[in-house]
Amino acid sequence: MAVNLVAPDARSLLPIAGVSLGVAEANIRKQNRKDLLVIKLDDGARVAGVFTQNRFCAAPVVVTRHHLAQVEPGASIRALVVNTGNANAGTGKDGLKHAQQTSADLARLLACKPTQVLPFSTGVIMEPLPVDRIVAGLPACLADLSEDNWLNAAQAIMTTDTLPKGASHQARIDSAMVTVTGIAKGAGMIHPNMATMLGFIATDARVSQPLLKMAVSHAARHSFNCITIDGDTSTNDSFMLMASGKAPMEEIVDAHHPHYIAFRDAITHVAAQLAQSIVRDGEGATKFITIKVEAGRDAEECGKVGFAIAHSPLVKTAFFASDPNLGRILAAVGYAGVADLDVEKLELYLDDVLVASEGGRYRDYREADGQRVMKQSDITVRVVLNRGTASAAVWTCDLSHDYVSINADYRS
Amino acid sequence: MAVNLVAPDARSLLPIAGVSLGVAEANIRKQNRKDLLVIKLDDGARVAGVFTQNRFCAAPVVVTRHHLAQVEPGASIRALVVNTGNANAGTGKDGLKHAQQTSADLARLLACKPTQVLPFSTGVIMEPLPVDRIVAGLPACLADLSEDNWLNAAQAIMTTDTLPKGASHQARIDSAMVTVTGIAKGAGMIHPNMATMLGFIATDARVSQPLLKMAVSHAARHSFNCITIDGDTSTNDSFMLMASGKAPMEEIVDAHHPHYIAFRDAITHVAAQLAQSIVRDGEGATKFITIKVEAGRDAEECGKVGFAIAHSPLVKTAFFASDPNLGRILAAVGYAGVADLDVEKLELYLDDVLVASEGGRYRDYREADGQRVMKQSDITVRVVLNRGTASAAVWTCDLSHDYVSINADYRS
Repeated sequence: MAVNLVAPDARSLLPIAGVSLGVAEANIRKQNRKDLLVIKLDDGARVAGVFTQNRFCAAPVVVTRHHLAQVEPGASIRALVVNTGNANAGTGKDGLKHAQQTSADLARLLACKPTQVLPFSTGVIMEPLPVDRIVAGLPACLADLSEDNWLNAAQAIMTTDTLPKGASHQARIDSAMVTVTGIAKGAGMIHPNMATMLGFIATDARVSQPLLKMAVSHAARHSFNCITIDGDTSTNDSFMLMASGKAPMEEIVDAHHPHYIAFRDAITHVAAQLAQSIVRDGEGATKFITIKVEAGRDAEECGKVGFAIAHSPLVKTAFFASDPNLGRILAAVGYAGVADLDVEKLELYLDDVLVASEGGRYRDYREADGQRVMKQSDITVRVVLNRGTASAAVWTCDLSHDYVSINADYRS
Repeated sequence: MAVNLVAPDARSLLPIAGVSLGVAEANIRKQNRKDLLVIKLDDGARVAGVFTQNRFCAAPVVVTRHHLAQVEPGASIRALVVNTGNANAGTGKDGLKHAQQTSADLARLLACKPTQVLPFSTGVIMEPLPVDRIVAGLPACLADLSEDNWLNAAQAIMTTDTLPKGASHQARIDSAMVTVTGIAKGAGMIHPNMATMLGFIATDARVSQPLLKMAVSHAARHSFNCITIDGDTSTNDSFMLMASGKAPMEEIVDAHHPHYIAFRDAITHVAAQLAQSIVRDGEGATKFITIKVEAGRDAEECGKVGFAIAHSPLVKTAFFASDPNLGRILAAVGYAGVADLDVEKLELYLDDVLVASEGGRYRDYREADGQRVMKQSDITVRVVLNRGTASAAVWTCDLSHDYVSINADYRS
């Protein structure tokens, strides 16, 4: 059902020097599937991340944040461990113990401190994590470690995803060719505020810790925070950026230097590809919708309008039906919460077709034109507010029968 | 598909002295169905209303508000005219002209001023109102006028509703028996802020204009503003309260007098019944869900939590599947926007079954107990925040395959 999404092949996901990956079948929830991943980092790597804003954040998110805050100079993060099948969320004190135990056991196998291992989980919530199976699977992950294992890693973190998600990008920075490779998992529960996915991007660039943190925030704001499937924000969302520092280049330390901008943009490029892949593989998605809100007073109001459209079940079912029932888009703009919006001024376009202006249907709009665009699998909705110079983009998908089926059946 | 909803019979909807109703088949969108309603008020009646907060509010809402603001002493509102099939929303200047023309034509037939007639519309948006057909249908409505016509009126305002909605209630106030009768239409696009329905309640009570206004706001806050089907807020929502003043009683003029409280509660009782009927007939609904949020700091945060749960497509599909995947409810509580919420403190109940406490699944919770409740067609979710004394209730329904079907096919 994924919309114009092609799974990456193993060769297109470029290895990152100093970053090796190993997967295993640990039988966490289902038999005969890769469900456990270890990402091992050479000594000296730097890691930064952004996390879910949900108050019910999952135990592994609590533990990972805590470990990241404790990293001492000279004792860098050495590994990430990711399981699918169980999110270890809504699991109280036992959940925290299980996440800590996962870290401690992998640390023992790698001869490092527990705080140098970051745990991640995805899957059903409010069920006890089968930590024994995870611990039992760790040796198989370590035996499988390889820098060429990104595709297997992408497969090992899937839940309701129909295809693995990954992307690579190279950019010349200074005299070095820097490589960026990332994987992600998503599907339902995709929402702004970092919402609801796991994303892991690695690079061989040499970057200071403060700039790595800055880059991961920037990339999230222009990728994962621009997407929505169903408006839910998950308990486990995490987006991690790892820099091994193996590239032959000077360390990037200045946020105003062109090297930083080039680095940041390379990371953002991969993050945006991953984010769009997640929407293209949204649960039950049959259409990929880009919503551009332009000429607003500030980015915030543009985002509000974009997400109001993207979250409207009425708009989303109209896209599913290829029905140019475009008044539903105007209604969503109207309740987006822009208090002094003058609806007489705005223009609504479907791809290049002007649909509405002056508070109503554009006089030369013909339904056949709207119908033609609605039948496409990739559609751009453009709302021009005509009250400023700011803009925002939101990527979303339609709401189909299969969304209901997938989420009604998820645990069975 | 409606959940435990029974259509009112004609005798259960009690007539209101001084309020007569007439319907017609005006062929506005479909043949052979009642689609036009006139509610005629005897001279001296008082009318107050609350309306959609959508910036794209429909032309009839603009005109009705304008007319209500212009009513002079001694020149009361004499009629309401309601059409289904076309919402006259997103129709720009032509839409305003059409709403004004509808009022003017009915005013001419009733020998009153155009400002004494309030127009209402519901149906598809962004299509021109077929005003000629409405005007042509008005004489048939007037020929049909009767105080016993409430059930026909309820049928004439339906859109995707599967059953007409109406309720009556009587209360002794002073020495008089006061009667309250109301009708409503709803289905999709039901949301707080008065959202997305038409509701008309009439009473024979004698009430001053300021107290009538106060009562309609109070009733909306405890009825239509507590319900949600899909989170969309429509362009046309209006809830009108009409008081003919025919009951043999002293006028209610004091907001602190027991007579006002009794009056307000009678109105709110009928409004709540109508609001719940709308949810029970939500598009594709198979379950009626009451969400009670208790022991919060204030009503606002309780409402936020209630609506976060009620709007979550993941929660709603779990109810559809009768799947006690209750972690999804915790996740929704977590992103409800209560910044300092301590998730360790809250308790989650499904009917009387304690599901979660201390940040995770309650130790004695058994899935069989959750499963038993989830199979019911009426379910109460109770979230106890344990941080104050405020509470709020939200009524919603599940998200089913039929929701998608109905909204994907609505215009065809």
